[in-house]
Amino acid sequence: MSQTNRRWIFAKPPEGRIGPDTFRLEIAPLPVPGPGEVLVRTLLLSLDAANRAWMMGKTYRAALQVGGVMDGFAIGEVVASNSPDFAVGDRVEGSLGWQLFACLPASALTKRRADVAPELLVGALSVTGLTAYFGLLEVGRPKPGETVLVSAAAGAVGTMVGQIAKLAGCRVVGTARGADKGEWLVRELGFDAVVDYTQPGLRRALAAACPRGIDVFFDNTGGPVLDAALTLMNVRGRVACCGNVSQYNVDKPGPGPMAVPGLVVVKRLRLEGFIVMDFFDRREAAEAQIAEWVAAGKVKAVMDTLDGLERAPEALIRLLDGGNRGKVAVRM
Amino acid sequence: MSQTNRRWIFAKPPEGRIGPDTFRLEIAPLPVPGPGEVLVRTLLLSLDAANRAWMMGKTYRAALQVGGVMDGFAIGEVVASNSPDFAVGDRVEGSLGWQLFACLPASALTKRRADVAPELLVGALSVTGLTAYFGLLEVGRPKPGETVLVSAAAGAVGTMVGQIAKLAGCRVVGTARGADKGEWLVRELGFDAVVDYTQPGLRRALAAACPRGIDVFFDNTGGPVLDAALTLMNVRGRVACCGNVSQYNVDKPGPGPMAVPGLVVVKRLRLEGFIVMDFFDRREAAEAQIAEWVAAGKVKAVMDTLDGLERAPEALIRLLDGGNRGKVAVRM
Repeated sequence: MSQTNRRWIFAKPPEGRIGPDTFRLEIAPLPVPGPGEVLVRTLLLSLDAANRAWMMGKTYRAALQVGGVMDGFAIGEVVASNSPDFAVGDRVEGSLGWQLFACLPASALTKRRADVAPELLVGALSVTGLTAYFGLLEVGRPKPGETVLVSAAAGAVGTMVGQIAKLAGCRVVGTARGADKGEWLVRELGFDAVVDYTQPGLRRALAAACPRGIDVFFDNTGGPVLDAALTLMNVRGRVACCGNVSQYNVDKPGPGPMAVPGLVVVKRLRLEGFIVMDFFDRREAAEAQIAEWVAAGKVKAVMDTLDGLERAPEALIRLLDGGNRGKVAVRM
Repeated sequence: MSQTNRRWIFAKPPEGRIGPDTFRLEIAPLPVPGPGEVLVRTLLLSLDAANRAWMMGKTYRAALQVGGVMDGFAIGEVVASNSPDFAVGDRVEGSLGWQLFACLPASALTKRRADVAPELLVGALSVTGLTAYFGLLEVGRPKPGETVLVSAAAGAVGTMVGQIAKLAGCRVVGTARGADKGEWLVRELGFDAVVDYTQPGLRRALAAACPRGIDVFFDNTGGPVLDAALTLMNVRGRVACCGNVSQYNVDKPGPGPMAVPGLVVVKRLRLEGFIVMDFFDRREAAEAQIAEWVAAGKVKAVMDTLDGLERAPEALIRLLDGGNRGKVAVRM
């Protein structure tokens, strides 16, 4: 075992886009677990748009502390344990952070099966997959034949939402940056149409892609896509508000959606925010369902994996720029 | 019976505020009911913020037609009938319009009990009262001890919402224009606090009036009150989107609420539009409940009644300016 740890420090809160000075790589002694603590070697680090939101202040969790190890969800393996709950070699998940080794109290870790690929544990079977599953099915509540729109469709959550919505019998439309990503979503993941939100005429393009209007909008981005989508929602349409990534990496937030509350009243829309933890009482059944879909080839667990801790900032920047396809992760 | 009709014509779609040229009073022959039609004498005309919204285009109903009789809900009495369903002297309600006499197909009228005051039929026991009842209890779903905010609190819906929320065991805060209306709402209707939304420091004043945050916001206005309220909502707060009256009478709509979708996600808020007709399968039970509250003195049915058809435009202008206290109606 290496006797040193390497870790990314959250060095400087960004103004606008994150950049090279947002993080600082440092070498530190290998931590020694105290009583009740567990030493974990990171295997696969999950990158999430929420990482950026944590830099902006308190959200559903405390804001990131400047000078501390950059936080992040990861899959790891126990290398030393002072807890009866964990043995060396156990596969675990938790907020291990952007580092090769993490020392955490046993209560902060969750044991996972070692025979499931770490890629599935940070992707389809993780909070990412569950966010898509519960947000679409429980908040959006699509009915067969309805039209589902999902923003950031090529992302980790978006790719899952689109595929689950197809299984639910819906017409599925996505927004993504660039024509090649759109073609890929249609060809590989079965989307019915994808609109490049960076091109002019967004609302017109969305209207053409959704000829019967939008019944469910799974919104990862907010911003202009939300603005346009609200005008195309059908009566009693539902917006599952999952994220606001269009506003995370900017200096000055854009204006709020003009259609709120006017069209919300007229069309009796429901906009509802959620976080996946609210549904964790049903986590096991949902994971089993997703695992079954993946095993049967009905849902593709799309990964966008980079190698090496050094590439974690690059991975997050790519994610926030919408450059990724599927779940972004860093393999150690 | 008078042999002529008097009626207000919707003469000119307003740009911004409605004014003296929006309507035109005209004298017309008394209509003669054809087969299946009923001639009704208007007793009490209901004025509603929605009247203004109808001028802006299609909403939950078709837009008003320029040159036609100004539409409006009213209580009337049958004076001639070619329908077996209605007899002379019957009390009815319907879209009688701004006129002394209306001739309508029987199917457009609903019979009401003649022993209930017309004031209750256009107010507490009308769509107004039911909007407050269903919007608060079914969309907002307040729990005892929670804080309920209602905008346009001195209006027809707001006065009902506040009183029903008190019966539900909530802390009730309203927004209204002017200190005197606030004092009146506290003294006469039992509001816990009222904020004058026209004064500077709206958000700070709302925060002071809602020391435990806002759990349910019954929003009649949109605009700056919605903006401020969203920042004060508690986790899992609910916004019953009932109206957008702050934007009905303006030339250029204001910006959308900055907190959407960011705070909606972070706080897992639900914003939900509704129209009262969606709940009409339970109308009878709701009316019985409201009637019981009114009879027991637990809910005051506050009326703001003007006399004479001539005053209908003035009544609507006063309503849109927030000059009224309770339900605005015109007695013929």
